[in-house]
Amino acid sequence: MGPIITTFERSPDCGKGLARDMPVRWALEEVGRPYTVRYVSFAAMKEKEHLALNPFGQIPTFEEGDLILFESGAIVFHIANGGTILLPDEANARSRAITWIFAALNTIEPPIVHRETISFSGRDVDGYVQWKSVVENIVRRRLSELSGQLGESDWLDGEFSAADLLMVQVLRRLAGSTLLSEYPNLIAYVARGEDRPAFKRAFDAQLADYLGNNSTEAYKKK
Amino acid sequence: MGPIITTFERSPDCGKGLARDMPVRWALEEVGRPYTVRYVSFAAMKEKEHLALNPFGQIPTFEEGDLILFESGAIVFHIANGGTILLPDEANARSRAITWIFAALNTIEPPIVHRETISFSGRDVDGYVQWKSVVENIVRRRLSELSGQLGESDWLDGEFSAADLLMVQVLRRLAGSTLLSEYPNLIAYVARGEDRPAFKRAFDAQLADYLGNNSTEAYKKK
Repeated sequence: MGPIITTFERSPDCGKGLARDMPVRWALEEVGRPYTVRYVSFAAMKEKEHLALNPFGQIPTFEEGDLILFESGAIVFHIANGGTILLPDEANARSRAITWIFAALNTIEPPIVHRETISFSGRDVDGYVQWKSVVENIVRRRLSELSGQLGESDWLDGEFSAADLLMVQVLRRLAGSTLLSEYPNLIAYVARGEDRPAFKRAFDAQLADYLGNNSTEAYKKK
Repeated sequence: MGPIITTFERSPDCGKGLARDMPVRWALEEVGRPYTVRYVSFAAMKEKEHLALNPFGQIPTFEEGDLILFESGAIVFHIANGGTILLPDEANARSRAITWIFAALNTIEPPIVHRETISFSGRDVDGYVQWKSVVENIVRRRLSELSGQLGESDWLDGEFSAADLLMVQVLRRLAGSTLLSEYPNLIAYVARGEDRPAFKRAFDAQLADYLGNNSTEAYKKK
């Protein structure tokens, strides 16, 4: 049985594994925990029942017994913190890995999401090119610093951890842009993450859900 | 003695307590831990010695014995996680408080910082008004959801926790804008945070540091 997570009934990324259920699935696969998925439509995400799970009307949520969590980063941390597979056992190493979780979500991700906000707003808005450039320069600086830190290491700080899982997932948002291609070691880092069996299982599961829920039959049920 | 934290030699906020050493000082005050401050100039932040503490060349950092941490959110979490003053003892309540830490830093803060990025870029860039409006609408939606969640409660989930500390600090970035004034319960929430003795001690300490380091004598030393 295991925990219940929510995800998009129809992921807007069309199964590319960029929605925020992906890191939660990946973390559950890394620690070998089965889980159940409940699909939520865009309309239902903003309704009372789902807002009781996540006041921001987003996916994913995580339910297990009496515990209800939201925020993909918090859920991944919760899964990781329950053991020593995704966070080191030694206290200082564990604190350092947690620092990298926050770095992924509070230093690296925000300008990447700002860039998406600008892209989604469309080229017709005045100053599109300039604003995109302002934000891309911030992304570039962060990637450069991250690239320097990673160097030739496989992972950010010793063994693969929840921090690498989240950082790889954040960097995957840049797939298809040329920003990441300036940093070959970051490309190799993302590829190492995507090459993990747990990543592949999580990716295949969300893709199968996307394809299944978009089949004519699933569509008719609505 | 206690841990050593780094902060701006001259805070660009001129002592308003918006720099990221503030939540770390506040957390240390809440748990009653003395600390030592080391000041870093803008130039020194990008030099090798400081980059060894924080690869992104930012303040604050946290040093205690062999442990070196960066990312204000991670440092606050580390301080909180060492006891039960800033995080509930009961496991589920603790996980929920940690969820709100992530919500503060990964859902509420990013659009607020994006708004600052646009403000700093200046009104001369084409489309300034439109882009600010796009991002302010995102901020407004998040504030509305947060306001709805908080309701008439004093704190986000039961007793004051590290999540409230970080959320109040994030909302303080909106001081001086009209965005927050649309949500009286959020204004009262920020005021409750600022009214805590530990907040006041932390605020006074960073202000004294700012004023002291900006005295003529301190200036001459450079």
